[in-house]
Amino acid sequence: MEFVQSKLGRIVFARLNEDEDLLENINLAANQSNVKTGMFTLIGALKHATVGFYHEGKHETIHINGPLEIVSCIGNISLKEGKPFAHAHVALSDEKGDAKGGHVMPGCIIGPTGELVLIEAKDLHLTRKFDEKTKLILLSMEK
Amino acid sequence: MEFVQSKLGRIVFARLNEDEDLLENINLAANQSNVKTGMFTLIGALKHATVGFYHEGKHETIHINGPLEIVSCIGNISLKEGKPFAHAHVALSDEKGDAKGGHVMPGCIIGPTGELVLIEAKDLHLTRKFDEKTKLILLSMEK
Amino acid sequence: MEFVQSKLGRIVFARLNEDEDLLENINLAANQSNVKTGMFTLIGALKHATVGFYHEGKHETIHINGPLEIVSCIGNISLKEGKPFAHAHVALSDEKGDAKGGHVMPGCIIGPTGELVLIEAKDLHLTRKFDEKTKLILLSMEK
Repeated sequence: MEFVQSKLGRIVFARLNEDEDLLENINLAANQSNVKTGMFTLIGALKHATVGFYHEGKHETIHINGPLEIVSCIGNISLKEGKPFAHAHVALSDEKGDAKGGHVMPGCIIGPTGELVLIEAKDLHLTRKFDEKTKLILLSMEK
Repeated sequence: MEFVQSKLGRIVFARLNEDEDLLENINLAANQSNVKTGMFTLIGALKHATVGFYHEGKHETIHINGPLEIVSCIGNISLKEGKPFAHAHVALSDEKGDAKGGHVMPGCIIGPTGELVLIEAKDLHLTRKFDEKTKLILLSMEK
Repeated sequence: MEFVQSKLGRIVFARLNEDEDLLENINLAANQSNVKTGMFTLIGALKHATVGFYHEGKHETIHINGPLEIVSCIGNISLKEGKPFAHAHVALSDEKGDAKGGHVMPGCIIGPTGELVLIEAKDLHLTRKFDEKTKLILLSMEK
């Protein structure tokens, strides 16, 4: 375990609208509000979902038919190639209340609404770096 | 996607007690601490749950027998008819560890405890407005 | 419902690495960064999990085979016997996207990575106290 710390910055509220892509629009909210490092939570609903399951160096893709409640979508913002980048995981529930989940991939399409809250770390620019062993772009703890 | 931003305000910790209604008491914590706009997380346990699943303009009701762990309860606070109002989603788990979830409705009854953490947006008063198309009271991005 | 409030303090980002214990390392991050009261979120992946389900005064233990995505891990930090102590709940997903969850116990072993974000409550030292009725160490609302 390694850690870095900073002061807190701003809080940003964003509303995602019907047919917008979940991941793309968390990234867009971070970009447009200029949050370079931070954390977020989001609730709402999806028309359908595409999530990843990490196994031996890659994310296997799982498609989930909707409609679905976004029970939780949480994650963090750091810089990848100089731009704000969201790493997000999501829990979803169906019409029986049964829960599914995974790593948010492109292809999670917003239903009626998505409500994002983003909290900024002030004066901290965390980055992601490719890790040969896991084949993941891990969060770097270098300031 | 549209967004608004503000400074961060206070952090509030609340303990919900046995037989209290989850949604009612998140609202009560926001009201009594005077948090008009913010975000929250909560963990704890429920005796039983009532959650909603949005489908074609209404929340269908799902009753879930307990006891249940509150794996996550996250959401936001905004103003509805001038009073702090919580929009909350919940993930729950049963005695086998199987997860359920949905939109928090009245009728989620606290078991031994519920631990709420509420983060305030300072000088921001977001409101909810009825949306004809979705029949939902959506979070407005007007300051 | 009872509550206490304070100013916000720092934000801490920690990376948990392969084979580290989830709960132990959230506690370690809080200890080393000197966060005595706060809240956190974490996403990542586990090799396997051990979670608790509270029932009539004790946490029954559930073992979950992995690998698993950590869909969400949220909770709070308070002081127990003078040291920062994490109360954490976790939602997990398997290779089919099916979700499980519960109270985080020792024995949740990090897979490729775990990304923790910790938000500090400034000048607030919440403690935990044993409660005879529930047999739990409940979060005390005394400042």
